[in-house]
Amino acid sequence: MKNYSIARSRRLRSTPYTSRIEKQGVTAYTSYNHMLLPAAFGSLEDSYHHLKESVQVWDVAGERQVEISGKDSGKLVQLMTCRDLSKSKIGRCYYCPIIDDKAGLINDPVILKLAEERWWISIADSDVILFAKGLAIGNKFDVKIFEPNVDILAVQGPKSFKLMEKIFGKKITEMKFFGFDYFEFFGAKHLIARSGWSKQGGYEIYVENTKSGLALYDKLFEVGKEFNVKPGCPNLIERIESGLLSYGNDIDNDDNPLECGLDKYVNLDTNINFLGKEKLKEVREKGIIRRLKGVKIETKEIIVTQSIKIFDQKNVEIGELRSGVYSPHFEKVIGIAMIRKPYWDNSQSFKIQLNGKSFDGKVCDLPFI
Amino acid sequence: MKNYSIARSRRLRSTPYTSRIEKQGVTAYTSYNHMLLPAAFGSLEDSYHHLKESVQVWDVAGERQVEISGKDSGKLVQLMTCRDLSKSKIGRCYYCPIIDDKAGLINDPVILKLAEERWWISIADSDVILFAKGLAIGNKFDVKIFEPNVDILAVQGPKSFKLMEKIFGKKITEMKFFGFDYFEFFGAKHLIARSGWSKQGGYEIYVENTKSGLALYDKLFEVGKEFNVKPGCPNLIERIESGLLSYGNDIDNDDNPLECGLDKYVNLDTNINFLGKEKLKEVREKGIIRRLKGVKIETKEIIVTQSIKIFDQKNVEIGELRSGVYSPHFEKVIGIAMIRKPYWDNSQSFKIQLNGKSFDGKVCDLPFI
Repeated sequence: MKNYSIARSRRLRSTPYTSRIEKQGVTAYTSYNHMLLPAAFGSLEDSYHHLKESVQVWDVAGERQVEISGKDSGKLVQLMTCRDLSKSKIGRCYYCPIIDDKAGLINDPVILKLAEERWWISIADSDVILFAKGLAIGNKFDVKIFEPNVDILAVQGPKSFKLMEKIFGKKITEMKFFGFDYFEFFGAKHLIARSGWSKQGGYEIYVENTKSGLALYDKLFEVGKEFNVKPGCPNLIERIESGLLSYGNDIDNDDNPLECGLDKYVNLDTNINFLGKEKLKEVREKGIIRRLKGVKIETKEIIVTQSIKIFDQKNVEIGELRSGVYSPHFEKVIGIAMIRKPYWDNSQSFKIQLNGKSFDGKVCDLPFI
Repeated sequence: MKNYSIARSRRLRSTPYTSRIEKQGVTAYTSYNHMLLPAAFGSLEDSYHHLKESVQVWDVAGERQVEISGKDSGKLVQLMTCRDLSKSKIGRCYYCPIIDDKAGLINDPVILKLAEERWWISIADSDVILFAKGLAIGNKFDVKIFEPNVDILAVQGPKSFKLMEKIFGKKITEMKFFGFDYFEFFGAKHLIARSGWSKQGGYEIYVENTKSGLALYDKLFEVGKEFNVKPGCPNLIERIESGLLSYGNDIDNDDNPLECGLDKYVNLDTNINFLGKEKLKEVREKGIIRRLKGVKIETKEIIVTQSIKIFDQKNVEIGELRSGVYSPHFEKVIGIAMIRKPYWDNSQSFKIQLNGKSFDGKVCDLPFI
């Protein structure tokens, strides 16, 4: 497929790290919350292998924060998610499907509880701030909602722990998964969470002080030399193999969380009040009629630019492919697809048309590895 | 500036016309409402001259619709905009600033009144649907809100009238600016408005029937040969010269409509109920402290990827440049900037740093031409 340039403007704005990654060889961008998100540094496959072996620094400033504070902040945050946050603790991250009154997914952020009445919603690519504002205004909630100046740097890969320890000391390696704490660097305190959009381990640094953040960016590359650190970005191969869902790609407002395998983040049997609760109870009672699954396709190449229909051997439409990539591990294309009942059993075979040619595929579990 | 590729995925999805424009030579994209929006077909300047002389067909499917219908639809739509819609008529388009309770701009769509209880909000680049849903849920409004399957084709340029007349007959040339009506083509009725994001005249075709829309796309190029029709897209030079504001570039949630020169769409002295009304009354009483203005800069080249600060001769920061482009008409860079009081008078001179060099500029009125 031919390459097309991305047009630059303030509407699709640069991050504090953009000038650095451009010196370091970024080759492609996507947009994420109206910001540039690096999508490739040369070969996707080289970057995939490197991520699984070493350590990478990612400019993921596009993962914006929605800050909600004030007396009714807990009530508003809970209203937006089907996950029970009544026992949530300060200093912890929570992966939370955000849904509307029809139980359709609005986003799937990680929510950080900063204080009893102060939260950050670390969002995927949709304007959650507008949903929060609308709900707060309509409900006359006593809250303050804004997008703080936070530009996340992710440090991902098996050697991220050693690299971060060299800069921040032993304490950072003792942090549990989805915990966060504050660490000093170059005159500023940074909120650092043990999290990130890969399954290779690592951290996300919520940079509020840009000057210190840029110094930290450079320090990570200086100290990281011995670990073969490289610039990187969320890797399509790694994230699909790991079954990390992407809002807008694999899941969207037409899907409910039960169809997307997010059952463990759906707490219907509690007293908490959230949008779409009755609708989800209905869905649970009747049973879902489609389900997000993995697929394997017998080909070496794919670029998904929109949903692609999937048919069984009798030409019955059984679902749609939403993401896909060639996996060096499986030596074929793997993807994430929404599959209709009763075709979602593993090993269900199907056909899919790509560039005018038909290929065979099979349904399987998520994650792949 | 080096070119970077745009990464493709379902999250930044293709339009029904993407495969056509790729055959026709699109060279750059931007994202708009999570969709690909063409940003260039080769030279921006060639396309600018062509748009002002002939006729172009634009894939502006990224201009999505938020459909709001039901008993409380009028109440909800009015709540979101500071423009008085109490006398709005079916069959008309209305340019409406959408603002929040702090009077901060959320979007600046064109709103189409389809029926007494059915509206389309034809949006700029932010998820207005989430704001509308939040407000509707919070206020317990009886409305239905969704994104219909509408992919706009714009036909723009002075020869658009002749081209459209050849396909749809005399009636289409009799439509007034910002009026809309329904026109039959290839077995489907299309809503067509006399509107579009240029000042060169033309139409926007709200394609709901994709098959008919694609046939119409081809027909426009077939019939358009005699008018030298070409594929195009919103043109940065033309839109800045014409003073067409771009949400996310020139205006955003930190601005109120009075600062942005949108006074004639702000109706504070009526009985209508909308968000931010009290706040705007306060702003009007105190007077604004900054204002969106045109600027001219003595240089030949610029790429704006984020706000750029503007200083007066004494190095006082007097504002920020938000959009800019080289104008062949003025033979210098022109741009749109937010300028602080009392520096907003025409002919105020300033300095701006671009790529490490300082350039002189002057404040002027919008639009330029």
